[in-house]
Amino acid sequence: MVLFPYLLLFVGVSLLGIGLVTILFKKSTSIKIEDDARAQYIARLIRRGAMTFLRKEYSVLAVVILAMFFIIFMVTNLVTALAYLFGASSSMLAGYIGMRAATRSNVVTTLTAKAKGERAAFLTALVGGSVMGFVVAGLGLIGVGLLFYLFVANENYDFVQIITCYALGASSIAFFARVGGGIYTKAADVGADLVGKVEMGIPEDDPRNPAVIADNVGDCVGDTAGMGADIFESYVDATVACIALAFGASLKFSYITLPLMLITIGLLSSILGLCSIYFLKGKLNRILHNSTYIAFVAFLIGSYFYVRYAEIELKFFGSIFIGALVGVIIGLFTDYYTSGNPIKKLAQTSSSGAGTNIIWGLSIGFESVVLPICSIAAAIFVSYNFFGGLYGVSIAAVSMLATVGITMSVDAYGPIADNAGGISEMSGFGPEVRKITDKLDSLGNMTAALGKGFATGSAVLTALALFAAFCERANLDVLNVLDPAVIAGVFIGGTMPFLIAALTMRSVGRAAWKMVVEVRRQFQEIVGLKEGKTEPDYESCIAISTRAALQEMLIPGFLTVLVPVAIKFGFKSMGNYVLGGFLVGVTLSGALLALMMSNTGGIWDNAKKYIEEGHFGGKGSDAHKAAVVGDTVGDPFKDTSGPSLNILIKVVSIIALVLATL
Amino acid sequence: MVLFPYLLLFVGVSLLGIGLVTILFKKSTSIKIEDDARAQYIARLIRRGAMTFLRKEYSVLAVVILAMFFIIFMVTNLVTALAYLFGASSSMLAGYIGMRAATRSNVVTTLTAKAKGERAAFLTALVGGSVMGFVVAGLGLIGVGLLFYLFVANENYDFVQIITCYALGASSIAFFARVGGGIYTKAADVGADLVGKVEMGIPEDDPRNPAVIADNVGDCVGDTAGMGADIFESYVDATVACIALAFGASLKFSYITLPLMLITIGLLSSILGLCSIYFLKGKLNRILHNSTYIAFVAFLIGSYFYVRYAEIELKFFGSIFIGALVGVIIGLFTDYYTSGNPIKKLAQTSSSGAGTNIIWGLSIGFESVVLPICSIAAAIFVSYNFFGGLYGVSIAAVSMLATVGITMSVDAYGPIADNAGGISEMSGFGPEVRKITDKLDSLGNMTAALGKGFATGSAVLTALALFAAFCERANLDVLNVLDPAVIAGVFIGGTMPFLIAALTMRSVGRAAWKMVVEVRRQFQEIVGLKEGKTEPDYESCIAISTRAALQEMLIPGFLTVLVPVAIKFGFKSMGNYVLGGFLVGVTLSGALLALMMSNTGGIWDNAKKYIEEGHFGGKGSDAHKAAVVGDTVGDPFKDTSGPSLNILIKVVSIIALVLATL
Repeated sequence: MVLFPYLLLFVGVSLLGIGLVTILFKKSTSIKIEDDARAQYIARLIRRGAMTFLRKEYSVLAVVILAMFFIIFMVTNLVTALAYLFGASSSMLAGYIGMRAATRSNVVTTLTAKAKGERAAFLTALVGGSVMGFVVAGLGLIGVGLLFYLFVANENYDFVQIITCYALGASSIAFFARVGGGIYTKAADVGADLVGKVEMGIPEDDPRNPAVIADNVGDCVGDTAGMGADIFESYVDATVACIALAFGASLKFSYITLPLMLITIGLLSSILGLCSIYFLKGKLNRILHNSTYIAFVAFLIGSYFYVRYAEIELKFFGSIFIGALVGVIIGLFTDYYTSGNPIKKLAQTSSSGAGTNIIWGLSIGFESVVLPICSIAAAIFVSYNFFGGLYGVSIAAVSMLATVGITMSVDAYGPIADNAGGISEMSGFGPEVRKITDKLDSLGNMTAALGKGFATGSAVLTALALFAAFCERANLDVLNVLDPAVIAGVFIGGTMPFLIAALTMRSVGRAAWKMVVEVRRQFQEIVGLKEGKTEPDYESCIAISTRAALQEMLIPGFLTVLVPVAIKFGFKSMGNYVLGGFLVGVTLSGALLALMMSNTGGIWDNAKKYIEEGHFGGKGSDAHKAAVVGDTVGDPFKDTSGPSLNILIKVVSIIALVLATL
Repeated sequence: MVLFPYLLLFVGVSLLGIGLVTILFKKSTSIKIEDDARAQYIARLIRRGAMTFLRKEYSVLAVVILAMFFIIFMVTNLVTALAYLFGASSSMLAGYIGMRAATRSNVVTTLTAKAKGERAAFLTALVGGSVMGFVVAGLGLIGVGLLFYLFVANENYDFVQIITCYALGASSIAFFARVGGGIYTKAADVGADLVGKVEMGIPEDDPRNPAVIADNVGDCVGDTAGMGADIFESYVDATVACIALAFGASLKFSYITLPLMLITIGLLSSILGLCSIYFLKGKLNRILHNSTYIAFVAFLIGSYFYVRYAEIELKFFGSIFIGALVGVIIGLFTDYYTSGNPIKKLAQTSSSGAGTNIIWGLSIGFESVVLPICSIAAAIFVSYNFFGGLYGVSIAAVSMLATVGITMSVDAYGPIADNAGGISEMSGFGPEVRKITDKLDSLGNMTAALGKGFATGSAVLTALALFAAFCERANLDVLNVLDPAVIAGVFIGGTMPFLIAALTMRSVGRAAWKMVVEVRRQFQEIVGLKEGKTEPDYESCIAISTRAALQEMLIPGFLTVLVPVAIKFGFKSMGNYVLGGFLVGVTLSGALLALMMSNTGGIWDNAKKYIEEGHFGGKGSDAHKAAVVGDTVGDPFKDTSGPSLNILIKVVSIIALVLATL
C-alpha cells in the first residue's frame, strides 16, 4: 500500500482551502476605507473580551485535557494519548483562529458598510466567517489524514483506538466550548436585556448599557467558537466512526479511505462554493443558499466519479446521496417552522398573554421535531436496506458533513454580522449604516436557525455512526432490546439529556441573575451613566460572564464523562450491553430535546421580531410584552441547552467507543 | 383443570369490594344533616353538566367502538369482537358509576363540612372517591376473570387475542376519556381564570363567573372520569399482558393465574386499607398515606403466602416486591419535586419575572424525571436478572397496580374535595366552612400530583409488559437495535409523544380561547352580572367546553390508532420489527415527556399557591403575576398533555399486541 500520495492529497487540499481563506481575509481586512476611532475602540473591547475568555477557558481546559492525557497514557500508551492531545489542540487552534478572524472582521464589516454599502459588507462578513469554516474543515482533514497515514498499516498500534482518542480530544473541547460559550452568551444577553431594555428603556446595543460589550463578546464566544468546536467534533467524529467501522470489519482498503476521500471532495466543493459568491448575483439570502447548493451539487458529482474510479460498489453512492440530501431537508423543515405561518400564528396568539405565547410556542416547537427526526429515520432505513448496511449509514453521516467548509462559513457569518450591527450602533453611525447591518444581521438569524437544525441532524447521524462503530468494536453483533440490561440502559440514557438541559438552563438563570445585579449596580452608582455622560464599566460585566461560564460548565461536563464510565464498569460483564442501550436512549431523547429546544427558541425569537416589525400592535403592545417573555425563555433553549445536547449525544458515543474494548 | 372456583373467587372478591363501597356510599350520603337549597342547586348544575358531557362523549365513542367492533369482527371472529365491546363497556360503566358517585358526594361533603366538621367531611369525600376506585378494580377483575374462565382452556379460540381485544376496548375508551376530559377541564379552567380572576378581579369559584360551573364539571370530567379510565386501562392491560406472556410461553397454570390472583389479593388488601380509615387517627394526610401503606403491606404479605401456597418459585415474590416498591418510590420522588425546597426556590426566582419562572420551572421539571425513570430502569434490571425474566417484569407491573382499589380512591377523592370547595363558595357558606373545604382541597392537590406520577410509572411498566407480550406473540426472540428497521422504528416512535403533546396543547389553547370570548361576552351583555344581581348563563359555557372537547379529541385519537397500523402494514415483512422499535421509542420518549409535563405543571401550580400563602409578596405581587403565567402554562401540561401521553404509551402497545399475529 502506497500511503504517501494520500497524505499529500489530504494535506494539499486542506492547505489550499486554508490558504484561500487566508488570502481572502487579508484582502478584505486591508482595503483602504475611512477609519473610525470609536468603532475601533469598541471592536478592541470586544476582541479583548473574547480572546480573554478563550484564554481563560483554555487554561481551565488544559487541566482537564492533561488529566485525561495521563489517564489515557496509563490505560493505553503514549502514542494514543498524544493523539488525544492532538485532537484537543486542533479543536482549540481552530477556535482560536476563527475567533481572531471574527473579531477582526466585525469592525471591518461595519466600516465597509459605511464606505461601500451592502454587498461589500456582506462579502467581508462572509469571508470572516469562512476562516472558521475552512480552518475547521482543513485541520480536521489534516488531523485524521495524518493519523491515517502513520498508523493504518502499522501493526504495532491499535489504529482504531488512536483515531478514536483523537476524536475524543475534539469532543472534550467541544462540550466545554459549547456549554461554557452558551452560558456566557446568554448570561450577558439576558442581563443586558432585562435591565437595559426592560428596566431602563434604552435600545439594544446602546453603549450606555454596561453589559453590551459582554453581549457582543457572547455572540462570538457562543456562536463562533462554540459552534466551531461543535461542528469540528461532528466532522471528525463521523469520519473516525466510519473509518473505524470499515477497518474493524476488515473491508477493502478503498472502503477504509472512502470517508477521508469524501471530506476531501467536500472541501474542494466548498472552495468552489465560496468562490461562487463573488460571481452570484441577486438577493443576499439567495446568494448564501446558492453557494451551499453549488457546493452540494459539486460534492455529489465529485463523489460519484470517485466512487466509479475507486471501484466502490455503486450502491454506496446512494448512501452518500441520502446523507447529503437529509441535511438539506432538515434545513428546509427548520426554515418552515421558524418562519412563515407558524410564526404569524404565534405572534397572533401572543395578544392573549405570556402564558398563551409559551404554550403555543412550545406546541409548535414540539411539533417541529417530528418531520426532521422521521427524515433521519427514513435516511437510516433507506441507506441501510437499499444501500450499504451500517457502513452505509455512517457514510451518510460523513457526506452530510463533507461540505462543512461552506456550511460552517455561513454559520460563522451570523455573529460577525450581529457584531457589526452592535459596533455601528455603539459608534453612533447613522440609520443608513444601521439599516445595512440590520439586514445582514437578519440574514444571520436565518442561517443561525438552519445551522442549529443542521448541527442536530449531523449530531444524530454521527452518533449513530459512532454507535455502530462501538458495537462493532465491542463485538456486539446483536443489541437486543428485550435484554433487560439493554432496556435499562435505554431508560437511563433517556434521562441524561433532561438532566443536562435542566442543569444548563439553571446555569444561565444563575449567571444572568449575577449580571442583572451588576448592571443595576452600575446604573445606580455611576453618576451620569444613564445620560450617556460617563462610560460604564464594561470589564466587570465581561468578568462576570467569564467566571460564571467557566464555573457552570464543569458539573455538566464531568457528568457527561463520568456517567458512561460508571455504567461501563458498574455493570461489569453486562457493561457493554447497558452502555449500548444507554447510547440509544441518549441519542433518541437528546435528538428530540435538542431539536425541540433549538427550534422553539428560534420560533419565540422570530415571533417577537415579527411583532416588532409592527404587527399585532408592534413594540410596546401587550402582544410584544408576551413575546418578550417567550424570547427570554427561548434564549437558553436555543443557545445553551439545545446546542449542549447536540454535543452530549456525540460525547457519550465517543466515550463509549473508547471504552468498548477496555 | 377446575376453573369454576377461580371464577367464584374473582367475582366474589369484586362484588365484596363493590358492595362495601356501595353501602358506605349510601350511608355517607343519607345522613341527616341540614340541607341547603342553593348548594343543591349548584350541585345539580355540576352533575347535569358532567353527566351530559359523559353522555355526549359516549355517543361519539359509540360510533368509534362500533366501527372497531366490526373491523375486529371481520378480521377475527364474533367472540373476539364481543370481548372488545365488553372491555369498552366495562370502562364506560366504571366511568359512569364513578361520576355519579362523585357528583353526589361533592355536595354532601360541603354540607357535612358545615354540619359536622372536618373529619366527617373528609370521610364523605373519600368514600365518594372509593366508589370509582373499587368499581375500577372490581369490574376489571370480573372482566378479565370471566374471559379467563371461559376461554383459557377452550381450544377453539385464540385466548390471548380475546383478552387482548378486551384490553383494547378499555384502551379505546381511556384515550378519548383522557384527552377529551383533559381538554374540557382546562378550557373551562383557563377560560374562567383569564376573564374572571385576571380581567374582572373576582375570586375563584365566584358564582358570577359564567364559566365557574363548567370549571367544576371539568374537575369531575378530567380528574374523575379521565383518571378512572386511565387507571382501569393500566390495570387491565398489565394483567392481560402478563397472562398473555405466561400463556404464550406455555408456563405452568399457576403462573398463568398468578396475575389474576395478585389483583384479587390487591383488591382484598384495598378493602382492608379503606376500612382502616375509620380507625386511623391523626392528621388527614397521614391517614391517606397510612391507608395506602396498610394496603401495600397487606398485599405483600398476602402475595407472599400465595406464592408459597401455589408452589410458585420464590424469586417471583422478588418481582412482586420490586413492582409494589417502585410505585411507592416514584410517589416519593414526585412528592419531593412538587413540594418543599424546589417549590420555594421557584417561588423566589419568580420575583424576576415570568420568563425566569418558566425557565426555572422547566428546569426543575426536566430534572424531576431523572430519578423516577432510573428507578423504573433499576426495577426492570433487577426484577429480570435476579428474579423472573420478562415474566418477572410484567409481574412487577401487575403488582404495582394491584392495590388500585385504594390508590384510585385517594385519587378520586381530589376532585370531590375540589368541587365541595366550589359549592361552598358559590352557596355563600361562611369562611369556617370554606376553611375546611380548602384544607380538604389542598390534600387533594397533593394526592393528584402523586397520582400522576403513579399513572406514568404504571403506564411505563404496563407498556413494557405489553411490549414483552408483543415480542412473544410476534415470535421476536430478538429485537436488535442494530437492525435499521428497529432503529428507524425507535426514532419514529420517539416523535409520536411530541406530536400528541403539541396537538393537545394547541387544542386547549383553542378551546380556552372560545371560552374566554364567551365569558367576556356575558360580562358585557348581561346587565347586573358583575354586581351579582343576575345569574350568568352557565349552560352556554358548559356547551362550549363539551363541544370543544369532543371535537378536539378525535384527531389525536385517530392518529394514535392509525400510526401503528400504518407502520405494521406499510413496512410489510419488516412490519413487526419496525413496530417493536416504535414501541420502544414511544415508551421512552412518552414516559419522559409525560412525567416532565405532569411534574412541571404541578411545580408551577404549587409555586403559585406558595406565593399566594403570602411568601415573596403574596397575591398581587410581581412574583405572583409571574407565577400565574407559569400556572397557566402548567394547566395543559399536567391535566391534558401529560396524562394523554400516559395513555398513548399503553394504547400503541396494546394495538401492536393485537396486530402482532395479523
